Amino acid sequence: MIRTIAKPYLLFLGDADSGYGAKTAEGLAHWRPDDCVGQTKLPGCEVDLGIPELSIEEAAERGAKTLVLGVAARGGILPPSWVTSVVCALRAGLDVASGLHDRLSSFPDIVAAAQECDRTLHDVRHPPQKLPLATGEPRSGRRVLMIGTDCAVGKKFTALAIHREMVARGIDASFRPTGQTGVLIAGEGIALDAVPGDFISGVAEALSPAAPDTHWDVVEGQATVLHPTFAAVTTGLVHGTQPEALVLCHQAGRRTVRGLDHRPLPSIQESIDAHLACARVTSPHVRAAAISIDTHLLSESDAYGALHIANQKTGLPATDPVRFGAGVLVDALLAE
Amino acid sequence: MIRTIAKPYLLFLGDADSGYGAKTAEGLAHWRPDDCVGQTKLPGCEVDLGIPELSIEEAAERGAKTLVLGVAARGGILPPSWVTSVVCALRAGLDVASGLHDRLSSFPDIVAAAQECDRTLHDVRHPPQKLPLATGEPRSGRRVLMIGTDCAVGKKFTALAIHREMVARGIDASFRPTGQTGVLIAGEGIALDAVPGDFISGVAEALSPAAPDTHWDVVEGQATVLHPTFAAVTTGLVHGTQPEALVLCHQAGRRTVRGLDHRPLPSIQESIDAHLACARVTSPHVRAAAISIDTHLLSESDAYGALHIANQKTGLPATDPVRFGAGVLVDALLAE
Repeated sequence: MIRTIAKPYLLFLGDADSGYGAKTAEGLAHWRPDDCVGQTKLPGCEVDLGIPELSIEEAAERGAKTLVLGVAARGGILPPSWVTSVVCALRAGLDVASGLHDRLSSFPDIVAAAQECDRTLHDVRHPPQKLPLATGEPRSGRRVLMIGTDCAVGKKFTALAIHREMVARGIDASFRPTGQTGVLIAGEGIALDAVPGDFISGVAEALSPAAPDTHWDVVEGQATVLHPTFAAVTTGLVHGTQPEALVLCHQAGRRTVRGLDHRPLPSIQESIDAHLACARVTSPHVRAAAISIDTHLLSESDAYGALHIANQKTGLPATDPVRFGAGVLVDALLAE
Repeated sequence: MIRTIAKPYLLFLGDADSGYGAKTAEGLAHWRPDDCVGQTKLPGCEVDLGIPELSIEEAAERGAKTLVLGVAARGGILPPSWVTSVVCALRAGLDVASGLHDRLSSFPDIVAAAQECDRTLHDVRHPPQKLPLATGEPRSGRRVLMIGTDCAVGKKFTALAIHREMVARGIDASFRPTGQTGVLIAGEGIALDAVPGDFISGVAEALSPAAPDTHWDVVEGQATVLHPTFAAVTTGLVHGTQPEALVLCHQAGRRTVRGLDHRPLPSIQESIDAHLACARVTSPHVRAAAISIDTHLLSESDAYGALHIANQKTGLPATDPVRFGAGVLVDALLAE
C-alpha cells in the first residue's frame, strides 16, 4: 500500500524562475545528494541546484530510475512543454514522480507512453485507492514524532536532522515522511494531507510499522492539533504513529498562526500539552523530549537567548538544528 | 460546493433481503416520509417500508425527482440489474443518488444516460472536487454538535430528534448531516468521512454556515476524538462546527470500543472533557449541555437508572430520545 519510488532520481526543473518554486528539488539535492544523478531544465530556467546538468538520455545512461518533477509550475498546472519531457523520460526507461496537484495520470499522452513502456507514474500528492483503517493495537519499535506550534516551523527539517544524527551515531533509524517532499526524499511513503479522513490514522500506522525494539522511526509531523484548519490530519497522524516521544518545533518570532493573522499562536507549553493529551489516546506513556527552534530571523546571541528561555519555561532541552546541529535532540531522545 | 439533492425521492430497494441492508432507506422513510413518494423493488426483495409500491414511471408521474439507492447491494457492488433500473430512472426524468462505495459515475451506461437526459448523478459517499479550507473565523448563529463515547451510539438519531423537537416548538432550526444517510435525509450536505484530511474542518464550516442569531444548526456527529481509528474526522468536524453546545451520546451497556474489543470505552465524563478541550480551539465558550443515552438493551426501570446515574456523575440532564423524547435535550440547549 505504501508507495515506493525507484532511485536514483533525475530532477526536472522545468522553466522554474526562482528558488521557492523549486523547494522540493532543492530539498532532494540537499538531503539526498547521492540519490540525485543530476538536474535537467527547459529554456528559461533560472534555478541551479549545483548538481550535474544532464539530458534525459544522459541521465538514463548514468542509471537514473525516476524523473522527479520537483518544481511548482507557473499557475500550478502541468504545461504542455513539460508533458513532452515526461513522455521523453518514459521512453528513455524512467519512471516519473510528480508532486503537482495536476495528476500525471490525467494526461492521455503520458498514460499511453507509461503503458507502452511499462513504466510507473507516481502522483505523490494523491493517495492510492486501497487504504487501511487503524486498529490502535500497540506495536514494537521506538518512534518519535515532530509536533509544532504551527505549520512550516521546521518539522521536516528537524526529523531529517535527527535521522541523520542517529545514523551518524550508528543507530538503526528510518526517516518516515508524511508530506510530498518527504516522500520524494525517502523514496517511499504517502502524503497524508490528501488521505480521506477515515484512513488517516490507518495510513499513519502503516507508515511507521512494527520494528525491532532497537529501531527508531523518526516521523515527519504535519500542522498541529490546535490549528483550526489542519488539526484533523495532525490528530490522525499522532494517533496512528503511537509515538513514545515528541519533539516540539517552533519558529522564533512568529506571533500569529501562519495565514490566519487573527489567531495568536499558542505557546510552546500549550502546544506540548495539547499534543501529549492527543497522543495518550494510543500511547499512554508518551513524553515530550525536546524543542527545536528555527531561529533564522534572530542574531546568534538572540538565538541563544530564545533557546535558553524555551528551556527555562518547559524544562526541556532546546536547540536550533540548522545552526547548532541535532545532537541535543538525539541526546534527549536517548536519555530515559 | 455543498451537494443539493432534489426531492421528493423514490426509494430503490433492489433485491435487498433484510432490514439491515436497507438501513438508509428505512431512515429516509422514518424521518422524512413526506419526502418519499414511494418504494420500488426488484424480484426477490424482502424489505417493505410501508410506503406506496410504485414503478419508476408511476413515481415520475407523481412528481418524484430523485431515485435513491438506499440499500447495500450484496457484496457491496452495484449489480447489473440495478444499472438497468438506474438508466430507466434517468430516462424517466429522475436524478439518481447513491450511498454505495461503487460510483454511479464509473458505469459508462449510467453516465451516458445521465448526459443524454441532462440528469444529475449524486455519489453521496464521494466528495466533490472543489473543497474549502477552514479559516477558524467566528461566525453568527447557534450551533449544537452531537459527540459520543463511540461510533454508532445514536448521534444521527439524537440530532434528528432534537431538530424535530425544535421545529415543533417553532424554533428556526436546520439539521446538518455529516454522513451519507443524513445527507440523503436532509437532501443536502457532504459525507465527511471521505473528505481529504486538509479539508475536513473547511467542509464542516461550510456545512453549518453563518446564520441569524435566532437560528439553530443541529449538527450530526461522527465517531469521537478518543477513537484510535476515526478521531481525525471528529477533530475536523468539532473545529469546523464551532459549536456553542455539545450533546454527548452513549449506548448503555457498551464496555469496549465497537470493533476494537481490546480497548475499554472511555467514560462519559472523559469523553465530554476531551471534546470540550478540542472544541475550545475554535469555540472558547463551548459547554456540554446534555446526555443522550441509547437504552434499548435495558428494561424501562434499568433505563431510568442509567439516566439517573449519568445525571449524578456529570450534573447534566440525561434522557433516551427514542424512549422518552428529545424534550429534555432541547430544554437544556435553550437554558442559559
